[in-house]
Amino acid sequence: MIVLLKQNPDKAQLDSLISWLESKGVEIHPTVGATQTILGLVGDTSHLDIDLISALDIVEAVRRVQEPYKNANRKFHPQDTVIKVGNTQIGGGNLTLIAGPCSVESEEQICEIAMKVKESGATMLRGGAFKPRTSPYSFQGLRNEGLRLLSIAKKLTGLPIVTEIMDISQLPNFDDVDVIQVGARNMQNFELLKALGTVRKPILLKRGLSSTYEELLMSAEYIMAGGNNEVILCERGIRTFETYTRNTLDVAAIPVLKQLSHLPIIIDPSHSAGKSALVSPLSCAAVAAGADGLIIEVHNDPAHALCDGPQSIRPEAFDSLVKKLNVISDTIKE
Amino acid sequence: MIVLLKQNPDKAQLDSLISWLESKGVEIHPTVGATQTILGLVGDTSHLDIDLISALDIVEAVRRVQEPYKNANRKFHPQDTVIKVGNTQIGGGNLTLIAGPCSVESEEQICEIAMKVKESGATMLRGGAFKPRTSPYSFQGLRNEGLRLLSIAKKLTGLPIVTEIMDISQLPNFDDVDVIQVGARNMQNFELLKALGTVRKPILLKRGLSSTYEELLMSAEYIMAGGNNEVILCERGIRTFETYTRNTLDVAAIPVLKQLSHLPIIIDPSHSAGKSALVSPLSCAAVAAGADGLIIEVHNDPAHALCDGPQSIRPEAFDSLVKKLNVISDTIKE
Amino acid sequence: MIVLLKQNPDKAQLDSLISWLESKGVEIHPTVGATQTILGLVGDTSHLDIDLISALDIVEAVRRVQEPYKNANRKFHPQDTVIKVGNTQIGGGNLTLIAGPCSVESEEQICEIAMKVKESGATMLRGGAFKPRTSPYSFQGLRNEGLRLLSIAKKLTGLPIVTEIMDISQLPNFDDVDVIQVGARNMQNFELLKALGTVRKPILLKRGLSSTYEELLMSAEYIMAGGNNEVILCERGIRTFETYTRNTLDVAAIPVLKQLSHLPIIIDPSHSAGKSALVSPLSCAAVAAGADGLIIEVHNDPAHALCDGPQSIRPEAFDSLVKKLNVISDTIKE
Amino acid sequence: MIVLLKQNPDKAQLDSLISWLESKGVEIHPTVGATQTILGLVGDTSHLDIDLISALDIVEAVRRVQEPYKNANRKFHPQDTVIKVGNTQIGGGNLTLIAGPCSVESEEQICEIAMKVKESGATMLRGGAFKPRTSPYSFQGLRNEGLRLLSIAKKLTGLPIVTEIMDISQLPNFDDVDVIQVGARNMQNFELLKALGTVRKPILLKRGLSSTYEELLMSAEYIMAGGNNEVILCERGIRTFETYTRNTLDVAAIPVLKQLSHLPIIIDPSHSAGKSALVSPLSCAAVAAGADGLIIEVHNDPAHALCDGPQSIRPEAFDSLVKKLNVISDTIKE
Repeated sequence: MIVLLKQNPDKAQLDSLISWLESKGVEIHPTVGATQTILGLVGDTSHLDIDLISALDIVEAVRRVQEPYKNANRKFHPQDTVIKVGNTQIGGGNLTLIAGPCSVESEEQICEIAMKVKESGATMLRGGAFKPRTSPYSFQGLRNEGLRLLSIAKKLTGLPIVTEIMDISQLPNFDDVDVIQVGARNMQNFELLKALGTVRKPILLKRGLSSTYEELLMSAEYIMAGGNNEVILCERGIRTFETYTRNTLDVAAIPVLKQLSHLPIIIDPSHSAGKSALVSPLSCAAVAAGADGLIIEVHNDPAHALCDGPQSIRPEAFDSLVKKLNVISDTIKE
Repeated sequence: MIVLLKQNPDKAQLDSLISWLESKGVEIHPTVGATQTILGLVGDTSHLDIDLISALDIVEAVRRVQEPYKNANRKFHPQDTVIKVGNTQIGGGNLTLIAGPCSVESEEQICEIAMKVKESGATMLRGGAFKPRTSPYSFQGLRNEGLRLLSIAKKLTGLPIVTEIMDISQLPNFDDVDVIQVGARNMQNFELLKALGTVRKPILLKRGLSSTYEELLMSAEYIMAGGNNEVILCERGIRTFETYTRNTLDVAAIPVLKQLSHLPIIIDPSHSAGKSALVSPLSCAAVAAGADGLIIEVHNDPAHALCDGPQSIRPEAFDSLVKKLNVISDTIKE
Repeated sequence: MIVLLKQNPDKAQLDSLISWLESKGVEIHPTVGATQTILGLVGDTSHLDIDLISALDIVEAVRRVQEPYKNANRKFHPQDTVIKVGNTQIGGGNLTLIAGPCSVESEEQICEIAMKVKESGATMLRGGAFKPRTSPYSFQGLRNEGLRLLSIAKKLTGLPIVTEIMDISQLPNFDDVDVIQVGARNMQNFELLKALGTVRKPILLKRGLSSTYEELLMSAEYIMAGGNNEVILCERGIRTFETYTRNTLDVAAIPVLKQLSHLPIIIDPSHSAGKSALVSPLSCAAVAAGADGLIIEVHNDPAHALCDGPQSIRPEAFDSLVKKLNVISDTIKE
Repeated sequence: MIVLLKQNPDKAQLDSLISWLESKGVEIHPTVGATQTILGLVGDTSHLDIDLISALDIVEAVRRVQEPYKNANRKFHPQDTVIKVGNTQIGGGNLTLIAGPCSVESEEQICEIAMKVKESGATMLRGGAFKPRTSPYSFQGLRNEGLRLLSIAKKLTGLPIVTEIMDISQLPNFDDVDVIQVGARNMQNFELLKALGTVRKPILLKRGLSSTYEELLMSAEYIMAGGNNEVILCERGIRTFETYTRNTLDVAAIPVLKQLSHLPIIIDPSHSAGKSALVSPLSCAAVAAGADGLIIEVHNDPAHALCDGPQSIRPEAFDSLVKKLNVISDTIKE
């Protein structure tokens, strides 16, 4: 961390700052120029509050040079994290394909889709039981009944299940869920993140609509600080000025997050674009950019779904997409 | 709502769409052009799922012309909502001034600031007990002890208190809190909003960092749909490409939200800019644009606060600011 | 276009609006509901000024349902536009690879790079002569001397050249340039676009940093309205809240623009990310999403370039990238 | 400037970097930590290319601590710049009110509006002759004829005139124009900025839709580097995710730019919001935040203007607005 002092800083305040910083265990290397003094702080500065230092009268600006996350940081954990879920592995060169409907609607629906996507090569089943909807008047999901139906589909197909949690109070019902998803709107629901830090299940953490890479990794850090190191990052589109697509898929997030962190990263091409015609090109792009997997909405009858928007594709489209993805995945590894 | 059909739509699908729409109680007025057919839907379309209709094979696009919120909509409730809190009123031409520290730190601190801001003209006291922090390693607030200290300051000064809730499970401890704040990061924590719909206390709902006006009003609608009509909207800066300020205060939100809704709207100048030097000009701007009030961070000693960033001002600055605000407030009413 | 009237519109104003619209050659289909009247306008509405109609007292809102561009619109030109440049073709299933340095610096530099990228499979040579720099104190390019050196490299290798124009007055010097590039900051320099509409050379039009798809296509329309139909669209990253990368590559622009328009679309992976380590994954992603080509910065010695930033890759990296791109391009066509 | 080196940097490269930096006249103060070395650069670093240094193999990151602009920087020019135009002054505590129609349409129109706004207290007349329009099919302004009509209105009323230039080639026709406006879309048309640096007239420079404060000041620097120090900054709304308003007025730009620079700053409330109902509250907000002036669209008959959108107000509204603005301006000075 670099602390840039104002011209002619008060001596007493400067001494007090220096002794406070030293008490935090950081070494201080001052650079005294003709017009400006800079303090270089060396050591573990992840516990220092940058806003606090900025507030001091003698400080002009503070620049962080070290990432504020530790457990999620590749610098301290160079190997890729590989997460086992049932018979499948996420990360480490595997291509994870999570598929299923937006919402669980009936036993027949979820079981039929589960069987179809398994046949095409899906390695996990997704399906919403608790649904975050912008409007209180929209369908809010089958809730616990949805979780029960997912368990039936899991037993039938052997596919591990991924589904979203919306509140800490729902946690006791997630026993049979294999991977717990945190939605984009809850990425900074810190109380929920803390609770998930104590769980012994992988967490699929979606990037918030306007969250930076660093904020996403800090939210992963909340979970990991609680003792749960099995976090899967998920880019699902960010909010920009462009309104033609629902959100803008940030494909650069894949190589950047893999460089900053050892955690696996998957992509949600369905929600980012909000149009089924874009699911296939965005999926190919994500795998070509090095994603560890995809979470895709697949529906047997998009026109009659209770909550699926135009972003779901049919099983046949999923089937032909998977074939292309495998070739692309092999190509970029060479 | 306007449904634009693709060229030569399938007759059977069109009939099926029309009868489904009619079953939802909306009237359909088709416009058949040489190359294009448009369906005009008239009636209450707030329960129709726009994504669902867009997903149909025969539909090219859907345009909403009616707002999807009802309880929060000024069209159905032309008078300003005025909310009584203790001896003070929010909305309806009153200027509400909520002031206090970022975090509650000690009995001495909160009581001293409470007395000072009351003297300057503050009508309510703010102070964080549960603190949403980006980093798990930052100070997380005094939590229940913070609530207890706020109650002491309230008893001492008579100022009603506003403080933030972060999870449903904290609700039982908010008995002595007068106005419950929902932070920007929880604006779409729908389970929390539903729980607050059943509470009989005003809710101060902060706009999310990248939430549209419509999304903010839909979140208000969640609370109101549960039976709690006392919602105070709060603009606190949105996330843009500009990084010099922490966020960008959207001052146009004030006249726009007052036009769309009857709910009072207040401004948080402290968090939007993240710099104490900007608090005074942004406060003046907000009142000049017609805000019903402000929520301002005031601190007796910014340099030593546990979590206050550079956005807090001292009591003396607050005192001289209040004088200007009152003149501006009177000027724009003329 | 849909015109939504306010409740109880003034009869005289309504008649005047209707006759004005009819004089513009559009058919009007009114939908009269219990509380609301909607006018459906059918015909060519691309010449109607949406702001003008919105300004009328009796109008609540106007919604466009037809795209405001015609020449660039795939609806009126279903086949892909294929542009011949020298012996190479852009669009129509070809993979165009434009490579070269950020700035032309010397005859030796441009000729050496030109030969290397040609060997690796580049089909065109890029190189900046006129450089748009944020600071007046930064190197502004070799200008006309740069154009002369590009011509030498073209003669040597046979590669057609692409280079940027910054002002109409430079046009007479672009005789030997094969494709004229319009930079992102000039995408809405309408006088320049009009001038380029009269030129008989292909124009590579870069999307502005915060321009929508529609605005990009309207800028293409400016050129095409002048009689020059050879426009190549180029996505080069948009400005978002994320600052880790220089800009955010919007990979969805590829399938969306191909759907809306018949013009070829290429991607600039170098400027969008601003980091050389991201060039390869973003290039693979772009081709996997269906791009017609790429424009990539390649440099023989990035550390000593006059203006290249960290976004340039070395010839060896370009060589191995091209091999992957060809496989991906074949895979997605299947 | 701070240069953060990678771990164990190559000795030869480091020596070469250090001698290159010293040749540029900057002092280097290294901070050698256990795991990291930091170089503090002291002196004038505005001529150093940050991208160039970042590209070096031994460099991990570069952080700028000094602003890259000099002529526009308040640090080197603490007094407010005050610009004389005719009998009026811009900056230095004066409230400049520039009013007039979006486009000049006829002698009668421009003269009538000019007389009305003068009566209400306007100090300058605005009116578009060359109009930047998104669509090539929209009205492009009366061009030179518009300039002629503005001159007539100037002679009639004595009001100095402000109008927009779109291309260098138009400059010879701007002899009778008092202040030349550069539109938001041309803020980084660097060739135009250079040309305006040689002119001896004040330049009203509008902030680009997605330009940062620093980029705006760098564009001012382009003009000033050419010898023209009379630059008036203008905030006119930035592009964000919110689409209800045309753009988002960034009111914090006023105090921030006044802190960073000595140049006057005015606000365009008409274009930022795009709705006439918002002009009055945004104008009040801008003056309350300390703006040196406003540029407002006023029209005698908004419904029949050739290009005015819904953002123009009538003369009566302007008249009552001016009265409020004067009170607010006096209030914040106290």
